[in-house]
Amino acid sequence: MPYKVLVIPGDGVGPEVVEAALYVIKAAASKYGVDLEIKTAEAGDAALRKYGTAMPPEALKLADEADVIFKGPIGESAYDVTSLIRMRYLLYANIRPVKNLPGVPAVKEIDCVFVRENVEDVYVGAEYRVGDVTIALKVITEKGTRRVARVARKYAEMRGRRVTIVHKANVLRVVDAFFRDVAMEELRGLEVDQMYVDAAAMELVRNPKRFDVVLTTNQYGDILTDLAAQVAGGIGLAPSGNIGDSKAMFEPVHGAAFDIAGKGIANPIATILSAAMMFEWMGRKDVANAIRVAVEKSIEKGIKTPDIGGDKSTIEVGKFIASII
Amino acid sequence: MPYKVLVIPGDGVGPEVVEAALYVIKAAASKYGVDLEIKTAEAGDAALRKYGTAMPPEALKLADEADVIFKGPIGESAYDVTSLIRMRYLLYANIRPVKNLPGVPAVKEIDCVFVRENVEDVYVGAEYRVGDVTIALKVITEKGTRRVARVARKYAEMRGRRVTIVHKANVLRVVDAFFRDVAMEELRGLEVDQMYVDAAAMELVRNPKRFDVVLTTNQYGDILTDLAAQVAGGIGLAPSGNIGDSKAMFEPVHGAAFDIAGKGIANPIATILSAAMMFEWMGRKDVANAIRVAVEKSIEKGIKTPDIGGDKSTIEVGKFIASII
Ligand SMILES: CC(C)[C@H](C(=O)O)[C@@H](O)C(=O)O
Ligand SMILES: CC(C)[C@H](C(=O)O)[C@@H](O)C(=O)O
Repeated sequence: MPYKVLVIPGDGVGPEVVEAALYVIKAAASKYGVDLEIKTAEAGDAALRKYGTAMPPEALKLADEADVIFKGPIGESAYDVTSLIRMRYLLYANIRPVKNLPGVPAVKEIDCVFVRENVEDVYVGAEYRVGDVTIALKVITEKGTRRVARVARKYAEMRGRRVTIVHKANVLRVVDAFFRDVAMEELRGLEVDQMYVDAAAMELVRNPKRFDVVLTTNQYGDILTDLAAQVAGGIGLAPSGNIGDSKAMFEPVHGAAFDIAGKGIANPIATILSAAMMFEWMGRKDVANAIRVAVEKSIEKGIKTPDIGGDKSTIEVGKFIASII
Repeated sequence: MPYKVLVIPGDGVGPEVVEAALYVIKAAASKYGVDLEIKTAEAGDAALRKYGTAMPPEALKLADEADVIFKGPIGESAYDVTSLIRMRYLLYANIRPVKNLPGVPAVKEIDCVFVRENVEDVYVGAEYRVGDVTIALKVITEKGTRRVARVARKYAEMRGRRVTIVHKANVLRVVDAFFRDVAMEELRGLEVDQMYVDAAAMELVRNPKRFDVVLTTNQYGDILTDLAAQVAGGIGLAPSGNIGDSKAMFEPVHGAAFDIAGKGIANPIATILSAAMMFEWMGRKDVANAIRVAVEKSIEKGIKTPDIGGDKSTIEVGKFIASII
């Protein structure tokens, strides 16, 4: 049975980086014998303009049928596509590994994995306006916290190291304290520490090496992972996987970057490394590693985009990596 | 009429940095003829242990009577002291200037002022637990947004530059969009742009020079200002002022730092620069500038604490700065 992969190219630089990654995905699948059935769907700002909805019924149907979604960045309508997919399929753990790549200038040395809760927090979309007052609900549940904490446990056991729970329980004494306490319980037996989110932002610049597995809520994770990616050498390199119990979605951490769209200069590495995570999720760590090695080789050989000091195009990088896999 | 100043030394390194700053405050007040009536109150973790309440009635009474509060960091009970003071006296604008100091190694060049909304957002303390579900309200009001936006306008006019509104309106389509829209209206006529909070965290590391005045909500401001302080050279240097219509509180951005408390190595500069902000708030820009110049001179002369490469103690730095004012 082939894996049903739905590709959503997305907006801005999305179609370019996804095209580059597809060279790699196809080369890897054929070389390593992974059976993929790839379909494509339009979703995002362009779909909104064209069909009046950012996630057209056709895209939704294909997403429902797919085993896994491989997605480029979405523009202004990201909540209607990215967040919708995360919530509809309960992709409750957003895995964002952050690690320097050899040959890429970085702010500091860093090697950690963020496990970001992905379907609760202020992201649930429960917002109200009453006259000149607006209110959004920040929701944290026991079930939601336990399941994502179990994912953090898995990563900590794999890496044999510590989990840092990031929260703001000194101010959010009910919800953030609940997240911390339930997570603590779920992580019992492991080495666990905790940090306030403001201090964590600072530490990610001051001493990022102190982080290993970071478990945090949805919005703190959103903010800290962009920051951490920048510390590691730039948002053009940061992959992610949105994982549920039966489905998953892989996508670069970066956004649509409309300012450089169509210029062929967007770095496809974040998207290509997201493809590596997808193969790992399929149980093919060998393929994932082959892609990672090929990415490192391409950088070593200078086949890289301008953001990391090269002069190659998005597609050239993708094709090169595909060719040496 | 003297200014009634209530000093709250606070927890951890608080008493040390506040003592050092008091040398400077007293020297400056006497040299420049500022009439201060200084009282002191216990509040924070130590007060909680001693009196069973972090903000004892005596401290509250003195705070009610004071024109201005000068405060060290508070430990675990910060919400009951720091946030209480902010909300009780409606100190709705938290002003956090971030600027490199000559001679202090920094991550990047930065020169901006954060105007952080200080009494709304998830900080209002409206939190609930119902069984295994917890909920906190994120509250943003028109009135609250207008008044803090007016403060941002004042700073932008003073500096003659741009305001960047930081929010997450692509996800928080009601509350953050409301904050943005009301702020935009209030800032009409100025150069204004906007950025998502995750992108802002990244940009503060990638290209911090692009920020001038940053207007944002309470919790984003909490996170981003710690980060920005680290980019500028460390949290030991970052001052802040909590400003309302008739009262104010000045305090360092850093926390109680229990790990180095009592060692005499905490950097008093954040607290001393907070004193400069206090004099400026009193209408004495001359005194504020004199303190800033003395701080820079002390660093230049190597009279500095270990965190910025010196070997002097907290009090030595305070006394030296006081002596050259
Ligand atoms: C685009 C947006 C909805 C999304 C988020 O905030 O989660 C993005 O920033 C991310 O981190 O994946
Ligand atoms: C201690 C805490 C209540 C406070 C806050 O989060 O506002 C602190 O972090 C700050 O930034 O002043």
